[in-house]
Amino acid sequence: MNKYLKSVLLMAATFSIVEAGTASAQDKLETAPTKFIEASGIKFSYRTLGKSTGTPLILLQHFTGTMDYWDPAVVNGLAKERPVIVFNNTGVGSTSGKTPDNVAQMSTDALAFINALGYKKVDLLGFSLGGFIAQELAAEHPDLIGKVILAGTSYQGGGDHLMQVLGEAFSQKDSPDPRLWLFFTHSPESQQAGREFIKRASARTQNRDPESGKDIADAQAKALIVWTNTNDPENKLLKSITQPVLIVQGSNDTMLGTESSVTMFKTLKNAQLVLFPDSNHGSIFQYHDTFVKTANDFLNQ
Amino acid sequence: MNKYLKSVLLMAATFSIVEAGTASAQDKLETAPTKFIEASGIKFSYRTLGKSTGTPLILLQHFTGTMDYWDPAVVNGLAKERPVIVFNNTGVGSTSGKTPDNVAQMSTDALAFINALGYKKVDLLGFSLGGFIAQELAAEHPDLIGKVILAGTSYQGGGDHLMQVLGEAFSQKDSPDPRLWLFFTHSPESQQAGREFIKRASARTQNRDPESGKDIADAQAKALIVWTNTNDPENKLLKSITQPVLIVQGSNDTMLGTESSVTMFKTLKNAQLVLFPDSNHGSIFQYHDTFVKTANDFLNQ
Repeated sequence: MNKYLKSVLLMAATFSIVEAGTASAQDKLETAPTKFIEASGIKFSYRTLGKSTGTPLILLQHFTGTMDYWDPAVVNGLAKERPVIVFNNTGVGSTSGKTPDNVAQMSTDALAFINALGYKKVDLLGFSLGGFIAQELAAEHPDLIGKVILAGTSYQGGGDHLMQVLGEAFSQKDSPDPRLWLFFTHSPESQQAGREFIKRASARTQNRDPESGKDIADAQAKALIVWTNTNDPENKLLKSITQPVLIVQGSNDTMLGTESSVTMFKTLKNAQLVLFPDSNHGSIFQYHDTFVKTANDFLNQ
Repeated sequence: MNKYLKSVLLMAATFSIVEAGTASAQDKLETAPTKFIEASGIKFSYRTLGKSTGTPLILLQHFTGTMDYWDPAVVNGLAKERPVIVFNNTGVGSTSGKTPDNVAQMSTDALAFINALGYKKVDLLGFSLGGFIAQELAAEHPDLIGKVILAGTSYQGGGDHLMQVLGEAFSQKDSPDPRLWLFFTHSPESQQAGREFIKRASARTQNRDPESGKDIADAQAKALIVWTNTNDPENKLLKSITQPVLIVQGSNDTMLGTESSVTMFKTLKNAQLVLFPDSNHGSIFQYHDTFVKTANDFLNQ
């Protein structure tokens, strides 16, 4: 072996070691340890992963979802370029307290959690119910909240079809997971993407969060239905958001509607809209690769 | 200098040479030589740039635009990942013949040009009037046309405000280039992006295409107005397009409307929609970096 080739192989070996070294447990949602932090009398459970520098991205979860309901393909993909924090809001999963029945209190609690972590500037990804919280935080805390991604969500007073669609989903006796019907369309391609999503979101076997029960579902359903059915005159909330917003939605969201996202795009001061084909509420999971690229590009700007 | 360091520096130098070698004239719209090819009795002028392998992307230009009216930031960015071909359709710039006054003939001529180049499969980027041609080609030639990007465009019968807006743009006495008002909004940020776009599109100084005169403008205006104002019952054309489509549009397109793109998204079988904030007809030039990333991701799938 000549010296030149040896040097190259040595370099390659060094790079491999470095790469293996960074792929620690913290870089995967499936294995990131659950941590706890107290704020406002609540013991919040959370997981951090990804880069140690850059603006942290806080993920705000959907109706009844715990940290384990996020798609690892999405969370790990975002974490390659920034710190990412997933957490359970008050009363959900391994977080203590009683689940609030209104979006205002959920926002207050999320703020207490972010403040407890000591962050001075964070970005938000709010999915569905989490998107309502993201809007309230962005409007009320322009110094703290940088960029906002609103996925599969709507605006205050935008209406909903939650009860009807939930009823249909849970009546699907052949379906092993209601998310197949709530997050994906009936097309074979979307259903296949749904099965792959559920497989990814089931990969964590150790220290999973406790599942949400009826108390959580009832409180959150009330919050969701009241918020989407309480008219916000002239969309004051949306119009008071000055941060850059990326809106992402599926072509056929049966719970919160696709048109709501078009309305948000038209009303917000500075929003980009992305609508995916043949997709329902969970379009960011169905098109996880494209979503991660789009979101990272938006957050990196 | 120790041998290890020397090897690394030698490697770095080798890479630099390789990189410099690939940055040939063919990789930049500003310097790519104009070529000619005959088809259907027309001598078409065109330029090829980018990679030599992969599905070629054919660019279809806007009302009165020549090859020099494309944004080098967009064309060169797309050419990094595929062969890109810009050309002048019949009668425009350095292409011979009489400019047709209807979209059907423009499509026939574009097809003749693509066939003359010998391609069996191409992708299309149609901007504005070029988007109409892209739709006709995609619907009629599913074997030849792979993916389609429709930017700043509309559908047959979608209506237009061309004459009104053109009149306003050309009456702006203080504006050195009507594209500042036709492609960008009145905001300082969009206008600044407009000036940068025009600067980029003016960088080519050698062998520019002849500018379009009144004959071309009259024929193309007729084609554009007739096409957008001739109703297509039940959007038959859009519904017959089966290829994946990426629709990109600005928040405030004053000529062809932003809502037209939402309608196209809803009507097409397999479309992704991207709407950019604070932007007019030329949103792909204003947000060239994000557009190039989005388009390359879409075309690479």
